Amino acid sequence: MTDLFADRLVEAIQSKGSPICVGIDPIFDMLPDAIAGASAKRNANDSEAAIDAIFAFTTAVLKIVAPYVPCVKFQSAYFEKYLWEGVEAYYSLVQEAADLDLLVIGDVKRGDIGSTAGAYAAAHLAEPPFDEHDDIRMPDAITVNPMLGLDTLEPFLKTAKDYSKGLFVLVRTSNPGSAELQDVRLDDGRTWSEMLADKLHVIASQPALVGSSGWSSVGAVVGATQTHTMQSIRQRLPQSFFLLPGYGAQGGTADMTRAAFKEGQGALVSASRSILYANRDQKYSDISGDWKKCVEQAVMDMKADIAGVLGT
Amino acid sequence: MTDLFADRLVEAIQSKGSPICVGIDPIFDMLPDAIAGASAKRNANDSEAAIDAIFAFTTAVLKIVAPYVPCVKFQSAYFEKYLWEGVEAYYSLVQEAADLDLLVIGDVKRGDIGSTAGAYAAAHLAEPPFDEHDDIRMPDAITVNPMLGLDTLEPFLKTAKDYSKGLFVLVRTSNPGSAELQDVRLDDGRTWSEMLADKLHVIASQPALVGSSGWSSVGAVVGATQTHTMQSIRQRLPQSFFLLPGYGAQGGTADMTRAAFKEGQGALVSASRSILYANRDQKYSDISGDWKKCVEQAVMDMKADIAGVLGT
Repeated sequence: MTDLFADRLVEAIQSKGSPICVGIDPIFDMLPDAIAGASAKRNANDSEAAIDAIFAFTTAVLKIVAPYVPCVKFQSAYFEKYLWEGVEAYYSLVQEAADLDLLVIGDVKRGDIGSTAGAYAAAHLAEPPFDEHDDIRMPDAITVNPMLGLDTLEPFLKTAKDYSKGLFVLVRTSNPGSAELQDVRLDDGRTWSEMLADKLHVIASQPALVGSSGWSSVGAVVGATQTHTMQSIRQRLPQSFFLLPGYGAQGGTADMTRAAFKEGQGALVSASRSILYANRDQKYSDISGDWKKCVEQAVMDMKADIAGVLGT
Repeated sequence: MTDLFADRLVEAIQSKGSPICVGIDPIFDMLPDAIAGASAKRNANDSEAAIDAIFAFTTAVLKIVAPYVPCVKFQSAYFEKYLWEGVEAYYSLVQEAADLDLLVIGDVKRGDIGSTAGAYAAAHLAEPPFDEHDDIRMPDAITVNPMLGLDTLEPFLKTAKDYSKGLFVLVRTSNPGSAELQDVRLDDGRTWSEMLADKLHVIASQPALVGSSGWSSVGAVVGATQTHTMQSIRQRLPQSFFLLPGYGAQGGTADMTRAAFKEGQGALVSASRSILYANRDQKYSDISGDWKKCVEQAVMDMKADIAGVLGT
């Protein structure tokens, strides 16, 4: 694993022929009946049954999507909800994904100061040094929250450099309420997110972080839904991969991701529920009663949809 | 637990006679030799030994400080570093603190959108519904990161209301680099943090969140080091408790916390390393070779120091 994360990501995208990422947001209530039993009979208070179902569901999803996508993104919150046993499942499933040659993004959105940020980097990005856990595989990249200041990214950056890992820094999120804090205009005319993007570029363009592909291992999270500012942020962060959540269930379309790409490169479009729970969408359930076939078809459709934008 | 968190906090502060909070930041390298063995012989790669030492250290610290302080704050990162076993220790130690009638703040700084925020609230604030874990006690309050937008606080607010819990929302952090993102000036003349404080006040002043004490269960994290803006943020958030990290090791002094208090109320001054690792400070090691006595003396000194500011 000597290649920089950015180069590994570019290569994985080329190999699978598509810049898409499946978000692993396992929600017990939404799992297919074939995995978790009839919804009316599920006991949400049985954490062991919930974790078992989530584990079975996720391993199946990983196998279905692995031939089509370069990358998966695990949402930590849905594992933390099941306390330490959920966290153990998270790390096991990261390993399952890695075994399928999928790149893994840990969507943990951590951020804190100084040595506390260092502890988070150790917990979620560095390969663990522990003798008892030398089989644990960490994500290839994580999402981080920069609100506390760009100095607080330093421990994450050091870890990314030391272990050839990547970061996706929240710059402009996909939710409706993000505008009131991220789009506020500063006295110099930039929005807060534009200012953040300018500062982040100074970090992302450090030679130690830029791969032979020209892309940096320090990327940005920019909601696919934020078309009004996509071009501006792209110009300010010319070397950063954009992780674009919000496609599908949140209303983002392929066309809305267009400005994130530079000559067909540099962005990763992420969809979670529209893929995982495709069997709940009549468009897919009409085709097949098998939830796995619905997931597969939804990934293939997303791939074709994004390809239309790339002209590939 | 029908009283609102804010009222329970006011009562605990009155009962202990001091608005201070000890931050539990257990760092294996810094633990006293009496707990973790001679530093030269410690094996940082032995996670089981590290967790055992952290557990023994923290339980001892909780017993020492419980007579003096109303509240402790657990830094989640130092537990997450030890993977799921560290997370299990975190929940066990929250229970230990609760058994000593200490209020507990989980310093998790989580933040995400929609139902993901709901999963974080379930993981860290709501009492777990799981039959297998009905003995688990959650923190009384947690820290949350609002960068994604105030809409993303909704699931945390709902949980706080449902379980009489509290939130401390990051408004102005204690680290040096916080200024470049939080002190930037908007086109209306306010800083970004001032704008955030104004918006947060609308939430914090909701009647369902304000206790009979007049204080809200939605507080703010404001670094003790941020004296230049303390008064302004206090005016904008007149009903919010301020959690003030940065006292002690980060350079905050009692005098610097003055503007956070309103008639001696409404703030909680937090110190971590200056208390936990007091035995590494010659001022205390000269008094006693027993690390526990050093911790106790450091807490008593902090209590007296803050009392000087309150005029109590």
